[in-house]
Amino acid sequence: MEAAQALGVDISTLCAGKGTCGKCKIRVMGEATTRLERTESEMKHLSEDEVQAGIRLACLTRLGESTVIYVPLRSRVGSQRLQTEGLDVPVEPSPLVRKYRVTMPKPQLQDSRADEDRLLAALTEQYGLPELGVDFDVYRNLPVTLREADWEATAVVWGNRIIALEPGDTSDRCYGLAVDVGTTKIAGFLLDLRSGAVVGVAARMNPQIPFGEDIMSRVTRVMMGGWDAVNELQGAVISGVNEIIEECCEKADVKPEEIYELNFVGNTVMQLLFLGVWPRHVAFAPYTPAGRRGVDVKASTLGLRANPGANAHHLPVIGGFVGADNVAVVLASKMLESDEMVMAIDVGTNTEIDLGNKDLVMADSCASGPAFEGMEIKFGMRATTGSIEKISIDPDTFDVYYRTIGDASPIGICGSGLVDAPAEFLKTGLIMPRGNFVTEMTERTDRLRKGLNGWEFVIAWKKETEIDTDIVITLGDIRELQKAKGAIHTGADLLMQRMGVTDESISKLVVAGAFGNYIDPENARIIGMYPEIPLERIEFAGNLAGTGARMTLMSAEMREYAEEISSKVKYYELAADKDFQKEYINSLYFPHADLTKYPETVELLRRFGQKI
Amino acid sequence: MEAAQALGVDISTLCAGKGTCGKCKIRVMGEATTRLERTESEMKHLSEDEVQAGIRLACLTRLGESTVIYVPLRSRVGSQRLQTEGLDVPVEPSPLVRKYRVTMPKPQLQDSRADEDRLLAALTEQYGLPELGVDFDVYRNLPVTLREADWEATAVVWGNRIIALEPGDTSDRCYGLAVDVGTTKIAGFLLDLRSGAVVGVAARMNPQIPFGEDIMSRVTRVMMGGWDAVNELQGAVISGVNEIIEECCEKADVKPEEIYELNFVGNTVMQLLFLGVWPRHVAFAPYTPAGRRGVDVKASTLGLRANPGANAHHLPVIGGFVGADNVAVVLASKMLESDEMVMAIDVGTNTEIDLGNKDLVMADSCASGPAFEGMEIKFGMRATTGSIEKISIDPDTFDVYYRTIGDASPIGICGSGLVDAPAEFLKTGLIMPRGNFVTEMTERTDRLRKGLNGWEFVIAWKKETEIDTDIVITLGDIRELQKAKGAIHTGADLLMQRMGVTDESISKLVVAGAFGNYIDPENARIIGMYPEIPLERIEFAGNLAGTGARMTLMSAEMREYAEEISSKVKYYELAADKDFQKEYINSLYFPHADLTKYPETVELLRRFGQKI
Repeated sequence: MEAAQALGVDISTLCAGKGTCGKCKIRVMGEATTRLERTESEMKHLSEDEVQAGIRLACLTRLGESTVIYVPLRSRVGSQRLQTEGLDVPVEPSPLVRKYRVTMPKPQLQDSRADEDRLLAALTEQYGLPELGVDFDVYRNLPVTLREADWEATAVVWGNRIIALEPGDTSDRCYGLAVDVGTTKIAGFLLDLRSGAVVGVAARMNPQIPFGEDIMSRVTRVMMGGWDAVNELQGAVISGVNEIIEECCEKADVKPEEIYELNFVGNTVMQLLFLGVWPRHVAFAPYTPAGRRGVDVKASTLGLRANPGANAHHLPVIGGFVGADNVAVVLASKMLESDEMVMAIDVGTNTEIDLGNKDLVMADSCASGPAFEGMEIKFGMRATTGSIEKISIDPDTFDVYYRTIGDASPIGICGSGLVDAPAEFLKTGLIMPRGNFVTEMTERTDRLRKGLNGWEFVIAWKKETEIDTDIVITLGDIRELQKAKGAIHTGADLLMQRMGVTDESISKLVVAGAFGNYIDPENARIIGMYPEIPLERIEFAGNLAGTGARMTLMSAEMREYAEEISSKVKYYELAADKDFQKEYINSLYFPHADLTKYPETVELLRRFGQKI
Repeated sequence: MEAAQALGVDISTLCAGKGTCGKCKIRVMGEATTRLERTESEMKHLSEDEVQAGIRLACLTRLGESTVIYVPLRSRVGSQRLQTEGLDVPVEPSPLVRKYRVTMPKPQLQDSRADEDRLLAALTEQYGLPELGVDFDVYRNLPVTLREADWEATAVVWGNRIIALEPGDTSDRCYGLAVDVGTTKIAGFLLDLRSGAVVGVAARMNPQIPFGEDIMSRVTRVMMGGWDAVNELQGAVISGVNEIIEECCEKADVKPEEIYELNFVGNTVMQLLFLGVWPRHVAFAPYTPAGRRGVDVKASTLGLRANPGANAHHLPVIGGFVGADNVAVVLASKMLESDEMVMAIDVGTNTEIDLGNKDLVMADSCASGPAFEGMEIKFGMRATTGSIEKISIDPDTFDVYYRTIGDASPIGICGSGLVDAPAEFLKTGLIMPRGNFVTEMTERTDRLRKGLNGWEFVIAWKKETEIDTDIVITLGDIRELQKAKGAIHTGADLLMQRMGVTDESISKLVVAGAFGNYIDPENARIIGMYPEIPLERIEFAGNLAGTGARMTLMSAEMREYAEEISSKVKYYELAADKDFQKEYINSLYFPHADLTKYPETVELLRRFGQKI
């Protein structure tokens, strides 16, 4: 641990080297190591396989003279980027918008071609472009612009149309915005369209939240309020995006007028409300979207702050409950190109699950609720500075180790902390698989107590916090988390059953969603958020929908590919599955009512002394 | 004449059979005719060739038992239609807008395709249409429209996009509007896009006239007033078109929302002001248009009253002074398909002249002024009810025979009457080739007199008129007509000289423009409006620009052809011709300073006893 810190390698730890949190797992390679004996405490955190593989806790290992150490990804702190931005999946830049600096001969009596012909001919001569269309607004100003520019201008070309014309050479300023419009959160990324570099990031709570926290309540709002409500909800999300544009632009010293393309992803109801489409029909059986295909519309038509000629694209959706955000996840996970079986889970207020390979990908969706986004949880919050993003509990002393984002005094708990809490409770015997607190444990720790609203466990004492009150996890919180993880598990499990896929045959599980900096894959598995897939096959991708949004902003090919995904991925209607209810109830248990599905977890819990 | 009237053949006459006006020329075929001897009066109107060819005046000819009579087109009254509508040149209907009635299976859980996919699939299945685009406004309302329509609707398809979607079956209602936006007059034609039938016609003075009667004064107005003035002028012409739409729709019992496409022609400055483009640059050397190509823009963007999804197309232009109206004339005259040399003259406030055949067509333009549209002429008026459209003067008594449109009491003189007046003055010795009145003629007729503003000739006495005043032609009027016809002649003559084309080699002269019902080709030639081309080669086409506008409304092929014409026709810059000034001055004479150019006219004038 000391060597890693000296070398600048970011190994996770919560207990500050006490050997109790088990976060700092490393693999000791080769033989020439002076090992400390494995302690009982260390052994609790290690499975038989891990011991065989040479896994140890870094804080309990002493190095020899030439020891080689491998630090697995899940033992690294990770970065704030992942949460908002998601994985970086590079694409060859081929944006739909390009700038061409062009010089034209001045008109004279011997060459009195129309301004438009002159411009187009110069673009053909200088860049080999075919005869382009010209947006009407550009056309209207053509004579003035070209003369002000003294016949040297920069044409902004989108597809086969000139969408803007700027005096002089502005070809080094060409930006685009990728936006993930979530039910709860909107995340925007300002990209330099020439390089693909992210030059600004900003996020906001979705300003539609006051109209209803989830999709159904917003649709209900529209049904009561009519088109006025549609316009109000559309106006809310557009204003949120405009704030993001402003913030990104300010950060990157870019003018909104230098944004020529905007690319949006979101679930299907978010798509409808973003575009201002009457959304009722997608919310009731048979849940038909208005349109599946991607939509192009002038950004100005939607009221977005960007170049007047800028195009706004909304990525295609798959079905009523599997939206463009999921198309982006399938795209960024490359599962439709994979020979082997891949599962992707995009955790959000609605959670979408995809499973398949190049032959077939199926998708379903479950209303997991916003618990993992920190909503409906007493001290829940989104992952920002001061939120507790990692929790570990000493199984002997019940001391709580935690880490906050930005190492600030805690003010609440974000998604990754909310995954850790029930897992740690389970490991330390504070709760039982049904999710009830083991009240006898009050004898061993005063953190477990009966509060005003029932049983609760103190994560951070008042004196440690920024908010002058104890930060606790209540029994109610645990119930919310059970419902959320239960819904997700049900969606994953039924999709596997219907496709005849077993845990073993899944070569990769991509977990996406904005939980916090870095979710603990083992803890998520301990609570049974997803099937018991080997930890090394689990990959956390953060905001993968955002990744896909950026990829399809940067690449015309990727955008075409999104259309292909939209038509290829088969939607599986979970609500129509006869086993749904039964499966959901079983999935409410930590990790599951049927423990034979989680042998490794059972083994781990037993190592921790739990009798299950 | 009597036989013709009995048979319903509309032979022209102004003198009511007195044998003096010479309008009722017919050809007597075969031998079995009892002829009256030709009178001196008849012989005045007949050339040697005509006598040889058996031409006589109908009113002075008695029929035998089985005489066959041929009535040449120019001796027929013609119809009001020609003036506003122009010749009818049929095209195979292939409009860009089509309607498709479509029924869709209702959504259900087993078929929850997106509304858009459902609609597109039905169009493909039922009509073999490729995957269409959907206008954003249609898209926004798709879920509501389709459900209101109970899955039976009519899709309005423009090009490869759905621009409107209507509940039920509206496929029998599909209209388009073709509009000729002249500097002085706007003429609109409402067409049934399925058949091509004209179902409504309306015309208005261009509401831009108060901003300046000619192009230059309107451009000056814009230069003084800036963009506000552009918007004002654009608003004026749009409001005029909207009035025309309303009138046409009322006449034909069509709703403006049933108009799905509008097709516009006009000169280049009219094009710019119609589209709201800054027009200064086209009015000054080197006279560059903003765009040469045709322009498509949503009608609603321009503020036109039509279906919200309707497209407005402006036909391409050729150059700064040869506009879309001329493209329409070249198209309707089919000169670019002709083996032989064709000349087209489109008389208006600006007159455009085209000359050529399938190998090459050149065009020029002259500022002929609005005299032949009745402007700047004391009693000039546009060709409507009560306007004198034909004038004939008895060479002995100087009695004036005239015909008004609608046979109403006269209120003024329209273009065709204004062509007749100087020609009749010349034939009867009332004016000399320079255009001055022969004041000695006051001894023979009290119609010639000195009025308040100089010499004038009374066409209709106060007691005959509706306006309680003598209708006269003043010397000032004659000067205006000289300038107008002189400009036209110069444009035609110089184009012929530069292309090496002689009078004889022109196989057809198409004269277009809204003069009145039927212009007298001989009188127009007598005053030297155009070169001395044999009368049988002269064809009056009325509003041929309007004809072309209708053809390119009805046919996608014709619209493509218009683009071809726009790029193929070569503009000849008259103002840059070194002989322009000299040629113009010579052309001010009736018919011309160089009488060797007009041998037939000289012969005719001599037959009438004029010593020139």
